[in-house]
Amino acid sequence: MYHRCAVQVRYCDTDMLGHINNTALAQWLEVGRVELERDCLPGPAYVMLRKLDIDFVAEMHFGGAVEIRTGVDEIGNTSLVLHQEIWQEGRCGVTARVVEVWFDPQTRRPTPVPSAFRAVYEQLRFGDERFVS
Amino acid sequence: MYHRCAVQVRYCDTDMLGHINNTALAQWLEVGRVELERDCLPGPAYVMLRKLDIDFVAEMHFGGAVEIRTGVDEIGNTSLVLHQEIWQEGRCGVTARVVEVWFDPQTRRPTPVPSAFRAVYEQLRFGDERFVS
Amino acid sequence: MYHRCAVQVRYCDTDMLGHINNTALAQWLEVGRVELERDCLPGPAYVMLRKLDIDFVAEMHFGGAVEIRTGVDEIGNTSLVLHQEIWQEGRCGVTARVVEVWFDPQTRRPTPVPSAFRAVYEQLRFGDERFVS
Amino acid sequence: MYHRCAVQVRYCDTDMLGHINNTALAQWLEVGRVELERDCLPGPAYVMLRKLDIDFVAEMHFGGAVEIRTGVDEIGNTSLVLHQEIWQEGRCGVTARVVEVWFDPQTRRPTPVPSAFRAVYEQLRFGDERFVS
Repeated sequence: MYHRCAVQVRYCDTDMLGHINNTALAQWLEVGRVELERDCLPGPAYVMLRKLDIDFVAEMHFGGAVEIRTGVDEIGNTSLVLHQEIWQEGRCGVTARVVEVWFDPQTRRPTPVPSAFRAVYEQLRFGDERFVS
Repeated sequence: MYHRCAVQVRYCDTDMLGHINNTALAQWLEVGRVELERDCLPGPAYVMLRKLDIDFVAEMHFGGAVEIRTGVDEIGNTSLVLHQEIWQEGRCGVTARVVEVWFDPQTRRPTPVPSAFRAVYEQLRFGDERFVS
Repeated sequence: MYHRCAVQVRYCDTDMLGHINNTALAQWLEVGRVELERDCLPGPAYVMLRKLDIDFVAEMHFGGAVEIRTGVDEIGNTSLVLHQEIWQEGRCGVTARVVEVWFDPQTRRPTPVPSAFRAVYEQLRFGDERFVS
Repeated sequence: MYHRCAVQVRYCDTDMLGHINNTALAQWLEVGRVELERDCLPGPAYVMLRKLDIDFVAEMHFGGAVEIRTGVDEIGNTSLVLHQEIWQEGRCGVTARVVEVWFDPQTRRPTPVPSAFRAVYEQLRFGDERFVS
């Protein structure tokens, strides 16, 4: 099952167009990945972002409760493909495809995904509940 | 010719990994698009982001001068595909593919790219100088 | 009794010194004021910041739970003085004195604090639990 | 003479009130202090913020050129009091009083302001051009 968490929206996440600014949505996606780490993983995940592909499906606004959903699509040797969705009041506003690479904190070079983490990632799947626009 | 501008890096763009945080890089890309608007376009551009696909090619750090390069890859009826690159000290750290849609500020519905803007976009091409990783 | 809420810390709130950046702490204080509005006030509060005086008592870090405490120190005709504290793991890291002014959303001119809000503000006092450094 | 620099305003510095958000103004003040360091000081300044007192004199908006002015008001043994102003189109929108403390990067304990820096700070005075509201 994929990971779900609420986002605490900040007033400064809005911009003068009256909606949530795209760069705040990138922050919310980061919140989702970090909360997944804290909630599910067996220790600190040394990962770097390689790709962040964001689809802005609908405008999002200050006020309504926001939920981030994060699941794992692919597990490579050193890399990981995540799928994320941001929902507000029953509506998906953002989807994202995220590629992360595990690295060695000493050398900062890519390193294989540790097996204890791999086992958890295997469980974090979206299945049929994935948003289709 | 594509548009070039410097980014004024902020200390708070860094994170505890000692590099520039991914969400600050999304802000820098926005700076590049807004400066292009101010420098080149014949008036305010009413555009919404539809897609933002960021490739993190190399870590970027606080300190060295940063340049954003922004060009137009495709011009549709209501949409626009941009290519952006972030360079620091002779090295490309980020590339991005950005899809924007023109909208009517009253109705917030998509509207065709005005011809005066279209003419400028036609000139903002990358050509051979595009970064290939 | 003063208002308390948790802050959802974002990874990008940190900077390359390895701690929470001062500008993120300003965001957290804003979170505290906005959550107080949502939790306690009888409607939207049309307030502008006039002063924000922040004391950085101790470094704050990514990881431990964070609580914001917000209370009212003084209620003027159009203005309000708040006291805020940010706590992490039993330790106060930040205190702030905040002056807000009520404004008319049409004219953007100062306007008296509505009596329904005034009544609530009267209850939001710190009393003896105020942090003394 | 005090230090002056331009701020590159970011679209995401605005909020849904249509003006620059207070937390972005805190970022701009940080830009002013960091640019002063780069432009004037004889090396890296190991300083921590102790106090940041911001007066919001007038709303600031996206669009017009912004200048930060930063000068030194007091030089203590380990601490420094700065005065900062943010100007947009001939109008002062923000003033700030900032207390910084020099620290030893190894121990993170306060340390005296090095004399080479002290000599520069002595020159960075506001004098008669200070904004009076």
